[in-house]
Amino acid sequence: MEVTRSNFKEVLPLVAASIENADFLVIDTEFTGLINGRDVSIFDSPQEYYTTILNGSTEFLLIQFGLCAFHWNENEEKYTNDAYNFYLFPRGRPGPEKIFLCQSSSLDFLASQGFDFNKLIKEGISYMTEPSETRLRDFLTERQKSYTNDKGTISIPNEFKSQIEDICKKVGVFLKENKREEMEIDRCNAFMRRLLFQELGTRYKDVAFVETKVLENKDRVLKVTRLSSSQDRKSRDDEKKEKEWEELEEAVGFSKIARMISQSEKLVIGHNLLLDLLHTLNHFFQPLPSDYQSFKEFAHCMFPRILDTKYMSSLPPFKDKVNSSVLQHLLATLSESPFSLPEIDSAEGRGYKYADDKQHEAGYDAYVTGLCFLAMHTHLARMRGEEKRRVTGDSVLLRPFLNKVFLAKTAHQDSPYMNLAGADPTPSRDHVFHMMFPKEWQRNDINQLFSAYGQITIQFLDDTSALVGLSRRDLAKTVLRAFSNNKKVKLVPFAKYKGMNNKVLPTPALERRDDSSPVYVKVNTPDAARQSQANVGDNDIGSPVKRSRSSSLSEPAKQTARKRTSSGIFQVQDSEPPPKRAELTDAETEIVKPREIHPRTNGRRKASESEKEKRKETKKADIANTERRKEKVIETFDEKSATQCVTAFKESDSWD
Amino acid sequence: MEVTRSNFKEVLPLVAASIENADFLVIDTEFTGLINGRDVSIFDSPQEYYTTILNGSTEFLLIQFGLCAFHWNENEEKYTNDAYNFYLFPRGRPGPEKIFLCQSSSLDFLASQGFDFNKLIKEGISYMTEPSETRLRDFLTERQKSYTNDKGTISIPNEFKSQIEDICKKVGVFLKENKREEMEIDRCNAFMRRLLFQELGTRYKDVAFVETKVLENKDRVLKVTRLSSSQDRKSRDDEKKEKEWEELEEAVGFSKIARMISQSEKLVIGHNLLLDLLHTLNHFFQPLPSDYQSFKEFAHCMFPRILDTKYMSSLPPFKDKVNSSVLQHLLATLSESPFSLPEIDSAEGRGYKYADDKQHEAGYDAYVTGLCFLAMHTHLARMRGEEKRRVTGDSVLLRPFLNKVFLAKTAHQDSPYMNLAGADPTPSRDHVFHMMFPKEWQRNDINQLFSAYGQITIQFLDDTSALVGLSRRDLAKTVLRAFSNNKKVKLVPFAKYKGMNNKVLPTPALERRDDSSPVYVKVNTPDAARQSQANVGDNDIGSPVKRSRSSSLSEPAKQTARKRTSSGIFQVQDSEPPPKRAELTDAETEIVKPREIHPRTNGRRKASESEKEKRKETKKADIANTERRKEKVIETFDEKSATQCVTAFKESDSWD
Repeated sequence: MEVTRSNFKEVLPLVAASIENADFLVIDTEFTGLINGRDVSIFDSPQEYYTTILNGSTEFLLIQFGLCAFHWNENEEKYTNDAYNFYLFPRGRPGPEKIFLCQSSSLDFLASQGFDFNKLIKEGISYMTEPSETRLRDFLTERQKSYTNDKGTISIPNEFKSQIEDICKKVGVFLKENKREEMEIDRCNAFMRRLLFQELGTRYKDVAFVETKVLENKDRVLKVTRLSSSQDRKSRDDEKKEKEWEELEEAVGFSKIARMISQSEKLVIGHNLLLDLLHTLNHFFQPLPSDYQSFKEFAHCMFPRILDTKYMSSLPPFKDKVNSSVLQHLLATLSESPFSLPEIDSAEGRGYKYADDKQHEAGYDAYVTGLCFLAMHTHLARMRGEEKRRVTGDSVLLRPFLNKVFLAKTAHQDSPYMNLAGADPTPSRDHVFHMMFPKEWQRNDINQLFSAYGQITIQFLDDTSALVGLSRRDLAKTVLRAFSNNKKVKLVPFAKYKGMNNKVLPTPALERRDDSSPVYVKVNTPDAARQSQANVGDNDIGSPVKRSRSSSLSEPAKQTARKRTSSGIFQVQDSEPPPKRAELTDAETEIVKPREIHPRTNGRRKASESEKEKRKETKKADIANTERRKEKVIETFDEKSATQCVTAFKESDSWD
Repeated sequence: MEVTRSNFKEVLPLVAASIENADFLVIDTEFTGLINGRDVSIFDSPQEYYTTILNGSTEFLLIQFGLCAFHWNENEEKYTNDAYNFYLFPRGRPGPEKIFLCQSSSLDFLASQGFDFNKLIKEGISYMTEPSETRLRDFLTERQKSYTNDKGTISIPNEFKSQIEDICKKVGVFLKENKREEMEIDRCNAFMRRLLFQELGTRYKDVAFVETKVLENKDRVLKVTRLSSSQDRKSRDDEKKEKEWEELEEAVGFSKIARMISQSEKLVIGHNLLLDLLHTLNHFFQPLPSDYQSFKEFAHCMFPRILDTKYMSSLPPFKDKVNSSVLQHLLATLSESPFSLPEIDSAEGRGYKYADDKQHEAGYDAYVTGLCFLAMHTHLARMRGEEKRRVTGDSVLLRPFLNKVFLAKTAHQDSPYMNLAGADPTPSRDHVFHMMFPKEWQRNDINQLFSAYGQITIQFLDDTSALVGLSRRDLAKTVLRAFSNNKKVKLVPFAKYKGMNNKVLPTPALERRDDSSPVYVKVNTPDAARQSQANVGDNDIGSPVKRSRSSSLSEPAKQTARKRTSSGIFQVQDSEPPPKRAELTDAETEIVKPREIHPRTNGRRKASESEKEKRKETKKADIANTERRKEKVIETFDEKSATQCVTAFKESDSWD
């Protein structure tokens, strides 16, 4: 069911009932962009992952929210879905004005999927954070008190006096004549309207009611109507106040639904949930804290049971059978043997059907995610010999996946999730090196250099440096020794490199190489997974060599102090105020600014070489170069013949 | 005539002819937002004005460009208009990906005017700066050279080997069987496609042509077709290269038209031209320089004859007859006695008619601006006893207005324009003070304090400071003396205050007062104007007490070294590289970030007082407060009963 500001108020109770009756809720969201500036790097820790997304993604707007509630039909023994597709646009009045980022490729992508931007802007439902709401409520209360007080008056500048006088006289005539119901004063700029408000208010206090009227074309005129009595003024004032409160409620808008979801404490499911979760918290609850631990507590407090189907599909028994966990690919895979999609009813006028095929409509994607989840859930149950179809939030089947948010970009480097309810994996990086090499080197030169030491994973940082990971971890020391006297390259162990960069953050690579995409190296072999299971006992993958000092994973619920208040507000302790952004170094500040991203090309390295020579000829080139140096190229895979470098959809941004 | 990417290529020659045949060109543009962060302050110099706009406005996108060419019809002795309304959207492929800002109220406003955002995103014409174009041309040349070269190969990870092998076998069968024309390989993620490209390329080098195909829903699949001969491969490679060049031309798109306008060196007219001019230069030519003098040279070089109708209407003989110079109000005024609108023909299928009334469509607004210009031009001619109807760029009638860009926000403080072809006004600020006052003071307290010294203009900076301008300039010293021992307030002359803030930029007012809008004080009396005319002899208004050392205003054309190259490129000397942005202090950096702007309310001061008390009770309040401190409130006028504070349209942002 599509929900816009036109039907929001009447749909609200329906949504409340859907949430109330659901066994689990599935969400999906759409944004105006994905990442601004430096993207996550494959060896990043969950904390670095979070910080990168915080700095690079949270200034985009959340423009569509899909909610699909699954409730169990006891008689028919199957689920029914109630789905809602909300268009969201926080207009500035009376809510806070929003200034936000857009990424052209993201908008282009959404448009190609049939996203209706006109509907978004005209009909989108407003929203705001809790602190904004509190502040606006306080303001309105105070302002309404002050309506009767006198405010500072402005002396009328001489050159306006005759005009003001003219208009006041016309109003006087209108009030006396009793011919028309109302009088409009147009063709006045804001200053004139202010002066007239003041003058008419003084002269015709008891007989005229003056208000601003916004015409359909957004022009503003003054509207004067007659007052029958002072009682009339009072009731009109009351009416106006009432209307202002209604407008405020409308401006809080969708946030109410987000908070209902939170308050329900139900299992909330999403596919590749990280951005959905971050935007949901940041736009409807509170600005995200810069501190990662605070974020985890905050997120877990607001959504105490979450599940990411992309993470779920990346673990056994699904892992080996799922080639691509892009949502539509996953759905296709799960509809074939040995899996099967469940039969789902759709609520009259509110649910999706499988045949609807409205890919990338947030509501539909939420529905599809729900299907995938149920297919996987059923498969797990079947493997245990159960014919269990109904989902319970505390099911032992789900425990391995609960409260773990998939980290698509680092998943293949032993850092596959963020654990909201416990410690994150702390995989070894002993097999990873920071390497400096000659500028003319290409990927093959590096491959060549390491050819004796097995497959490697390369992440280029810039023209002369990269991170290199060995698949033969046992050879780390050998490699370090072997290259210690090499004159062309310099290897530094990853941990040492990170230590050096702890204060001086790594300069974002100003121009990434054409081949900066990582080479996949298999690290999570079934063996490794088994081994790590043995270590932590909770179906946890990854190889946590060092465990952080926080308590074990088996009791996640007890770890974070719950801080939910009755209104769903998360209270951060005084000692840890949550500033909206991390403090940025100069280098990083640049990242959050909008800029052009140039497509990487396979011939880029060479191109820029010969370019430089040509450019020496003209001054024009200097300018171009200056601009070029400021650009950053985002990491995405560049195919041999594809000219595009930016994939708009978050799904395709990850390797699988 | 509406122009989108569908008809751009065929319309291009028509536009070229329109520009070629025109006596003058009128432009208008629409943006995704107006100002991010601190806005211009009423006592700002043109240089500060420029810097503020540069930092606060240039990250918004230009999304519609209206061009109306007026050509003279000798037989009928009247003008004909050819108008074009271009939808502009720089998509990321093959052009540079754009990340840009939007202001929700601006989009809301445009949507209410019927702006079609779906058309914008799907059908908008691309554009890019000249440096981007040069770079992309170089890249493409180099990349096409390297198609034949071998690039780094990726070793296939074990877990992908069987899949790759399967697919390669299927392709082998397809190539042998000769049944179907093409074969599609779907459900592969980017990494799989890359591996397949590599493998199929090696195994079937001479018999298969592999390319990426982007489906309508933006999914990517691999398409395999048979090669009949090695000649076939060559011609297909050539075809592909040709297509890539065509795509590049399409991506340069509208920039070509902007550069045609520049190269024509014709009179270019706009209404409230500043933002149009800045965005035009910044998006289609080169990133704006941070240095103000460089900007003036750059702008004058690209557009050697510009005229701003808003500035024109602010001077005698129009000034006293024009209550509001908002474009539609101006049109209404100029259609009544003593003015009259000219009769204008419209080119078949390409021109507007007066009755079209498509307010805020950029093409129509350009047309209306042209009408206003002609009405004022005719009026000026008539006053000189001429019946001159045809406009010439070097007409003596136009000289007072030429190359002066209106500065709406400082116009009433003797700084009404930026002179692109000479020195700007340097009005005295001897009558202006920076004042510190007690936190509990309201506007009326300050008015009271100055009551003995005539009217004052107040611009609040924050809760405890403001700029105060005297209308009785002669009393400046008296006032300073009178308040020197006042214990409640501290006055500092404006020049001294600016000096103190030269290095430490004024902290943007974190929370502006509700009444921070300036009180209008008449300073440009006809007398003052006459006096200044006497000074500079060029109908120049304002009272330039100090003249800067640059040469006189009467010879503007000779002042700036013209630096246009044949391709319309402006070359900046080596000694003054044009960084895209001014170097920002920490305080300013915050400003360019997107954020929420809260409506100011008249009761704001009081509200925030009582708020504070309440907030001590709960921790929740602390969070809210933290967020609140980070917000800046933009300066706009707030009427007694209007709840909105942000006016979306640039016109209404100024006082008249």
